[in-house]
Amino acid sequence: MYLLEQKILSEGEVYEGNILKVDGFLNHRIDVPFMKEVAKEFHRLFMEDGVNKILTIEASGIAIGALVAEEFGCPLVFAKKTKTKNIAGDVYTSKVESFTHGTTYDILVSKRFLDKNDKILIVDDFLAVGNALNGLIELVEKSGATLAGCGVAIEKGFQHGGDKLREKGVKIESLAIVESMDHETGQVYFRK
Amino acid sequence: MYLLEQKILSEGEVYEGNILKVDGFLNHRIDVPFMKEVAKEFHRLFMEDGVNKILTIEASGIAIGALVAEEFGCPLVFAKKTKTKNIAGDVYTSKVESFTHGTTYDILVSKRFLDKNDKILIVDDFLAVGNALNGLIELVEKSGATLAGCGVAIEKGFQHGGDKLREKGVKIESLAIVESMDHETGQVYFRK
Repeated sequence: MYLLEQKILSEGEVYEGNILKVDGFLNHRIDVPFMKEVAKEFHRLFMEDGVNKILTIEASGIAIGALVAEEFGCPLVFAKKTKTKNIAGDVYTSKVESFTHGTTYDILVSKRFLDKNDKILIVDDFLAVGNALNGLIELVEKSGATLAGCGVAIEKGFQHGGDKLREKGVKIESLAIVESMDHETGQVYFRK
Repeated sequence: MYLLEQKILSEGEVYEGNILKVDGFLNHRIDVPFMKEVAKEFHRLFMEDGVNKILTIEASGIAIGALVAEEFGCPLVFAKKTKTKNIAGDVYTSKVESFTHGTTYDILVSKRFLDKNDKILIVDDFLAVGNALNGLIELVEKSGATLAGCGVAIEKGFQHGGDKLREKGVKIESLAIVESMDHETGQVYFRK
């Protein structure tokens, strides 16, 4: 999505360790009128797929998830992160390893909110090694629902989480795929 | 807001300890088309107040915050909860006591995202004793921005956080004010 690539080039900040900071429009301050255009693009890409529910993960997926759900006229469910050891039996859970923080946490969704008749679009702000998306896909599989695909704002192509999911046959639509970054020059290069 | 009161009566669940569970439409599964109507009502109530930024707190305030920001055509900023002891100097922080969990946590917003020229509408899903709102108001005050007011979906009137803020002169608009609940009958009574 040309608009998103331009936004990353003008407002994103590159730091050592392949960190791309976009908290000015995507995940701390959210440029809602701009993200609305992003949501419309996800709707265009998945409008033929029978989506009836959006699934994301707290916290930074929720804003974009809500805007996408509005486009589809459907509910949004967000998975909760938890360190709680005792999780009641009325939830689907999966484990997510945080690549950034080197920790593992559980994510959960109430069984009441995922149904085997659902056709689910997973939405998230970032895709890197793919741990969060894999955890969300596992929740969908456990519920018996159908996965329509995954819509991601920014994919870090060089961490290959998206490529692995595409090889498995999952429909992944990333609106900007970063192929490489240079923290010394601040440059960001996108996949063609 | 009549529609919200009806939604609470039809879908809310009352549990012992004055717990009102509305996670089927407000804070786990979010009924986005319905919450869009809620967002429009907040816009109607604050449209004369010069609002240029919405502020909320993760996680469950984000969805409604995004939909309200869309109505105002402005950005959304969400405060982050943290247990981190060492917080860098480029953030505004305040302490919030969790009435439900009996713990205290810090909330923070990057100084880059609150400006003294801002006129801020704080939005949240729930208002009970008012600790989260007070923490958010403190962040606004520290930034030198102007507080337009607070829009809350559901206020627990019997916990008086809203009344205390109104006595201080803060404009608080709650779309449904619960005056009492009865977990044995499941009944919810609203303030007239």
